[in-house]
Parts: sequence; structure tokens; C-alpha cells
Amino acid sequence: MSTAPNDYLLHLADNAVVLGQRDAEWCGHGPILEEDLALANVSLDLIGQARLLYQLAAARSGGGATEDSLAYFRDDTAFRNYTLLELPNHGALVGYAASDRDYATTIVRNFLYSALMVLLWDALQKSPDADLAAIAAKSLKEARYHLHHAADWVVKFGDGTEESHARAQAALDHLFPYTEEFWTPSAAEDAAIASGAAVDVRTLRAAWDAIVADTLAEATLKRPEVRGYVPEGKQGRHSEHLSYLLGEMQGLARAHPDGTW
Amino acid sequence: MSTAPNDYLLHLADNAVVLGQRDAEWCGHGPILEEDLALANVSLDLIGQARLLYQLAAARSGGGATEDSLAYFRDDTAFRNYTLLELPNHGALVGYAASDRDYATTIVRNFLYSALMVLLWDALQKSPDADLAAIAAKSLKEARYHLHHAADWVVKFGDGTEESHARAQAALDHLFPYTEEFWTPSAAEDAAIASGAAVDVRTLRAAWDAIVADTLAEATLKRPEVRGYVPEGKQGRHSEHLSYLLGEMQGLARAHPDGTW
Repeated sequence: MSTAPNDYLLHLADNAVVLGQRDAEWCGHGPILEEDLALANVSLDLIGQARLLYQLAAARSGGGATEDSLAYFRDDTAFRNYTLLELPNHGALVGYAASDRDYATTIVRNFLYSALMVLLWDALQKSPDADLAAIAAKSLKEARYHLHHAADWVVKFGDGTEESHARAQAALDHLFPYTEEFWTPSAAEDAAIASGAAVDVRTLRAAWDAIVADTLAEATLKRPEVRGYVPEGKQGRHSEHLSYLLGEMQGLARAHPDGTW
Repeated sequence: MSTAPNDYLLHLADNAVVLGQRDAEWCGHGPILEEDLALANVSLDLIGQARLLYQLAAARSGGGATEDSLAYFRDDTAFRNYTLLELPNHGALVGYAASDRDYATTIVRNFLYSALMVLLWDALQKSPDADLAAIAAKSLKEARYHLHHAADWVVKFGDGTEESHARAQAALDHLFPYTEEFWTPSAAEDAAIASGAAVDVRTLRAAWDAIVADTLAEATLKRPEVRGYVPEGKQGRHSEHLSYLLGEMQGLARAHPDGTW
């Protein structure tokens, strides 16, 4: 039976935990109570997905690895997430403070990522790697909700006021080039495709383009042009933002590795 | 039919939103992934309870009030939560930074509060105010889980290592005196009792004492003595910590009151 390589599981898990962390930065700071809860639920779903993937990777790798050792005791260069997902929530805002957040940036990122993940989880739920397929089936339901939630807000922003439209377009212009990373397989993805347990993400590109085109049309937003820059976060080459994010996320676990925090 | 006065609904709602906010400060900073999710779920439950109560109060008061106007556009002196719930997560730690968190403080507070709320929601689910009774029935299920979760950790800490025991006892010593506020009814509580829609919290004290005694005995922790200080947060007289908490929580909504954040 074909099983997905652990590096591929970690890529999927790191994506989920890093975006879950970014979305969690809104906890208690949402624009309206309902939204505060909705985004927190997205974050919890993502961290839940990461846990399942880390648990699977830990069980397969042995050697004392646990979901917590994988999440809290790997350094940034070991993380295999898309660069898109580690960018701060203030996005392209100028003159920001470290704690500033731009909701349009958060929503547009969730949209671009979940539009991919509904396609990828749908493909992976048919994987011959039964453990991965089960995680994919559960995650697909969640990703569908995440996409629905984010796309709704992209349309509300884009087809809203002049200011909300401008902020959504600015977020899109800032983030869209990072999606190029989706379409250039890493060594881990190539190995996963070769194992038969994974799917070549490039085969999903036309469907992703269609989802994006539909939503942007309804939102009266313009798809930005990309100019060939391909980020390499999933190969461990990250922006400086990831180390700050991991510093926050890993701080307590590393300060008290014996668990008596 | 008797209905609970709005000031009483706001007392219950403010309790939930303020503690939900404090628990949310752990989002993405938990000691282990499983705990990160568990505490975030507690926070979401509490904010969900607050939404239902604010919605009910807003519908009854009319005048354009909404759940968001009640949560985001009242000042600290209008808030009616117990002082216990607004205290920072660093608790009694000395030499802390503003962002420092002590998990024992968070857990002990959740324990002391949810031990009360399982009793109060249980009583309120029989209220002749049918709207309040419905919220109480839903909240009771959640409070039972919160109590179970917190009591488990109180025992793990208390009956754990020397350090975890010391931190749990320090948190208990710091927080316990604030529970005196539970037992001295405010004007809003007196009015609610008089309306027939609410219950006199003093009738729950013996049961609360028993829950606390059981858990502290298992945790090998000592119940602190109290010396007569009664906080008055539920009468709008708060510590300085609430204004910082509300500044964080209300900042975005107030910066963009038209919702085009």
C-alpha cells in the first residue's frame, strides 16, 4: 500500500498550523462579535487538522516524535508551509505596528488558500494512503466552510464601500503573487506524487483559477498580474515573519519542556 | 410572565465576554496543542453565551441597541462583570510583562467561575423567563465541560510537581478572595430575584463550597482564608485591568464604527 512521505504530511500540517496561528491573532479582536467567533472557528479547524497530520507523521516516524515535538520543537527552516501563510495580518499597510491587523488581508489570504484546499483535500480523500484520506475527508468539510466564509467577505468588501473595495484590492495585490508557490512542486511533493499517495497540485490549477475568477468577478476586484517570483517557504526558505510567529507559538512549550508550565 | 431585568442579563453577558476575552489571550500560545484548542473552545463558548445574552438584552431594550453596541460601545464603568474575571492572566507573578501568562492562574479562575456557573445555569434553566431559561440550558452544558476541564487541570497541577503545586496554590491564594463578590447581591441581582426570573446566588453557596472542597482535596491544595474584602465589579467599580482589556477588545469596532474596517 502506498503511503505519503512524512515530509509531505509535514508540509500539509505546517500550512494548517501556521495559518491557524495567523487567524488566531484575531481572537478577541474581531470587528464584530459574530466574526470574532467565525474566524476563531476557522483557526481551531486548522489547528485541529495540523494535530491529526502531526500525529500521523509522529506515529510513522517513531523515535519519540509527538504532535507537540513536531509543532513546538522544529525551527523555522524545518517548517514546510507556503510563504503566503506566514505573512503578517497587517499585509501591505504602511506605517503599521507589529500588532496591527488588516481584516481584508486575513480574509483574502483565507480565500486564496481555502480555494486550493477544497480541491486538494477532495483529491486526497481518494488517496490509497487510508490515514491521509481520512484526514482529507474531514478537512474537506472544514475547508468548504472556510472558502464559503472567506468568499462571502471578499464579495462584501469588494462590492462594498469605496474604502473596503480599495483595501480588498490592496490585499489581493499584495498576496496574489505568493500563490505562485502553489504550482511549483517541492521535492516532498514530487516524492508524494511518485508514491501514488498524493496528487499533483498543477492538475488543480484550472479549477482554482475558475473559483478565483468567479469570486473576483462578483466582488468587482481585479486579478493581479504575477511576474514570475516564486516563494520557497515549502522548501524551508522563509520570510523573517515565520521566526517571529514561531517564537510566539513555541515560546511557552520551549520554556517549560517538562510540561510544568 | 416574569422577565429578568436587562441589567441582570448584562451582568451575565459581561461575565462571559470578559472571561472569554481573557481565555482568548491564550489563542496560539498554549502549552500543548491539545490544550491550545481546549482553552480556545472554552473561550468560544463563553463569547457565544455573551452573544445570546446581549442579543436578548438588545431586543428587549430597543432603541437601536445590538449585540455589538452592547459589547463594543459601553465603557468600563458600564460593565457589570465580576472583578475576578478581568484580572490579567499573569496573576500574582512578580516582574511580569504585560503579555505574560500564567496557566495556573487561568485554570484556577476558570475553575472557580465555572463551579458557580454550573449551579447558576442549572437554576436559571427553570426560570419563568423562557428566553433566559433557554440560554441557561445551552450554557449549562458548556459550563459542565468547562468545570470538568478546569478541575482536571487543578488536580494535575496541585497533585503534580513541586513547582506546579506551588503555582497552583499561588494562583488560588491570589484569586480566591475575589470570589467573595459572588455572594453579595448587587442591585441588579436583587431586582432580578424580586422579578422571580432569577435565583439568589447565596442559595448556591453551600453547593459551590462542596465542589471546591472536593477538587482542592484531590489536588492537595489548601483553601485560602478570606478577610472580608468584597470586590464590586458587578456594580461597575472595576480594577484598572478592565479598561485595558476593553481597549483591546473594542479597539477595532470603535475605530471603524461603520463596519468598513
